[in-house]
Amino acid sequence: MELTVLGCNSATPTSSRNPSAQILTVSGRTFLIDCGEGTQFQLRKLHINFMKIEEIFISHLHGDHVFGLIGLLCTMSLFNKTTPLTIFAHPKLKEMIMPKIEFFCENISFDLRFRPLRYDKPEVLQEVKRARVVSIPLKHRIETCGFLFKELAKEPNIRPAAICKYGLSIPDIVSIKNGKPYYDSFSGEEIPRTELVFDPPAVKSYAYLSDTAYCPSVVPIIKDVSLLYHEATFGQDHQDLAKKTLHSTAHQAALIAKEANAGKLLLGHFSSRYNDTLVLEQEAQAVFPNATAVYDGFQFAF
Amino acid sequence: MELTVLGCNSATPTSSRNPSAQILTVSGRTFLIDCGEGTQFQLRKLHINFMKIEEIFISHLHGDHVFGLIGLLCTMSLFNKTTPLTIFAHPKLKEMIMPKIEFFCENISFDLRFRPLRYDKPEVLQEVKRARVVSIPLKHRIETCGFLFKELAKEPNIRPAAICKYGLSIPDIVSIKNGKPYYDSFSGEEIPRTELVFDPPAVKSYAYLSDTAYCPSVVPIIKDVSLLYHEATFGQDHQDLAKKTLHSTAHQAALIAKEANAGKLLLGHFSSRYNDTLVLEQEAQAVFPNATAVYDGFQFAF
Repeated sequence: MELTVLGCNSATPTSSRNPSAQILTVSGRTFLIDCGEGTQFQLRKLHINFMKIEEIFISHLHGDHVFGLIGLLCTMSLFNKTTPLTIFAHPKLKEMIMPKIEFFCENISFDLRFRPLRYDKPEVLQEVKRARVVSIPLKHRIETCGFLFKELAKEPNIRPAAICKYGLSIPDIVSIKNGKPYYDSFSGEEIPRTELVFDPPAVKSYAYLSDTAYCPSVVPIIKDVSLLYHEATFGQDHQDLAKKTLHSTAHQAALIAKEANAGKLLLGHFSSRYNDTLVLEQEAQAVFPNATAVYDGFQFAF
Repeated sequence: MELTVLGCNSATPTSSRNPSAQILTVSGRTFLIDCGEGTQFQLRKLHINFMKIEEIFISHLHGDHVFGLIGLLCTMSLFNKTTPLTIFAHPKLKEMIMPKIEFFCENISFDLRFRPLRYDKPEVLQEVKRARVVSIPLKHRIETCGFLFKELAKEPNIRPAAICKYGLSIPDIVSIKNGKPYYDSFSGEEIPRTELVFDPPAVKSYAYLSDTAYCPSVVPIIKDVSLLYHEATFGQDHQDLAKKTLHSTAHQAALIAKEANAGKLLLGHFSSRYNDTLVLEQEAQAVFPNATAVYDGFQFAF
């Protein structure tokens, strides 16, 4: 998996931080998560081929997560995108954006599909090409979902030495990979599985949780996640504001990472008042040491 | 007057050029002309106080001239703008944007007014604080207006020496500035006007013409304009495309500047295919030497 942060600011952009948008690639598949104003410019600047995007996941309908959508869709159409695009979002989005698409894009060049999200419980949104996407209801001022992207369990790898030693055929290999026992054709004895296969690389996962107040109900859903992006709009110096606006502090983001036993925590969705986000990073590290405050253009392969 | 170009690309943005938007200040008044996606970021980056904007002029309803509007308006509201804002645009804009403002801005903090443009003939849109704004119908695929911003004729300046020599009172000065004759109180002779006043600075003007095909009907309206911004989406190498899409070549922009006896020509609204716009600048200079291809962040005081 590889994550690219296109924008990590909250509602009002600063001169150095754009509103929310991220690109996640999973096994060569390109997902866009949220689409704040200027997303298409960030994609251009970072040399990401946005024509490859086939799914867009919109966490919620606040402007800083969605105002870049119409521009991106029109540009895709101007570039004659032909592959379908599915937008996972609140049903209201389709109602609002379709008249604009009809007016501004004229004859849109590709099949644009909408898939409404639900906000009462987690839901498997997609399971294709070795990746599963699950929605995670969050706690914000309006209906909001985070998303969990998880590789599916991979097949074990056959040891090359076993292929030679036992003269394994293709059907033998398929059968072993599927977990069936293998018996030596001479002795008839079952060969220990550890001699035939070795474990595949660990399954990786990424969780995007923004925007949300401190929401411990997400912990069982994202348990042991490899990489967690959690909003940290404020520091503890503004915990009253975080409470009022249903956002999180960096401290609360770190608590979630710790409780979920995350591999690494990324902080983002910063309030414009924090020119330097080091204070937020340090606040999180006091609870969860492997925490990093991201920036626009931040990339992380895992 | 001072012009700042926020974006000078055409429909699809590049990694270095944003879509159309400009700031023009006239006698301390701040006008925004067009509002492509990312306008609010450009304003932040260039340290322009966008809370001072009181009028926005939208040339036409193509996305690259208007997609930044909703984000800018929401940000103004988040920052608690209280002074009214008037948008001069096609009447369809109000119909399209108001539901979005109601949904995303909730309780907008300022009085937002819409003033529909007409496209059959030039019209004085505004005449305040020593500046007049006139709409200029253009020739494009949809109804489009350019805009002429012109200082009103200034009063002549009283020569300080005359004040002392003739002992001029405040009412005398007002009377002389208003063009009335002045008679010496001793001799009763009329004092020659040239001895009393000197001419004010020349009246300055700025014309914004984008998007448009070659449209000579604008020439009488912008005659002797100090500064002309004319779209030059293409070079003569793509004049077929310019004709088909109702855009101009740099050559045609220069012809308009020459026919209008403009003081200076600025070229913009470049097609993404021109990484380097020098070729367009040179094409225009062959017809009208005082031509410059602008860039994002270009500023010009005159």
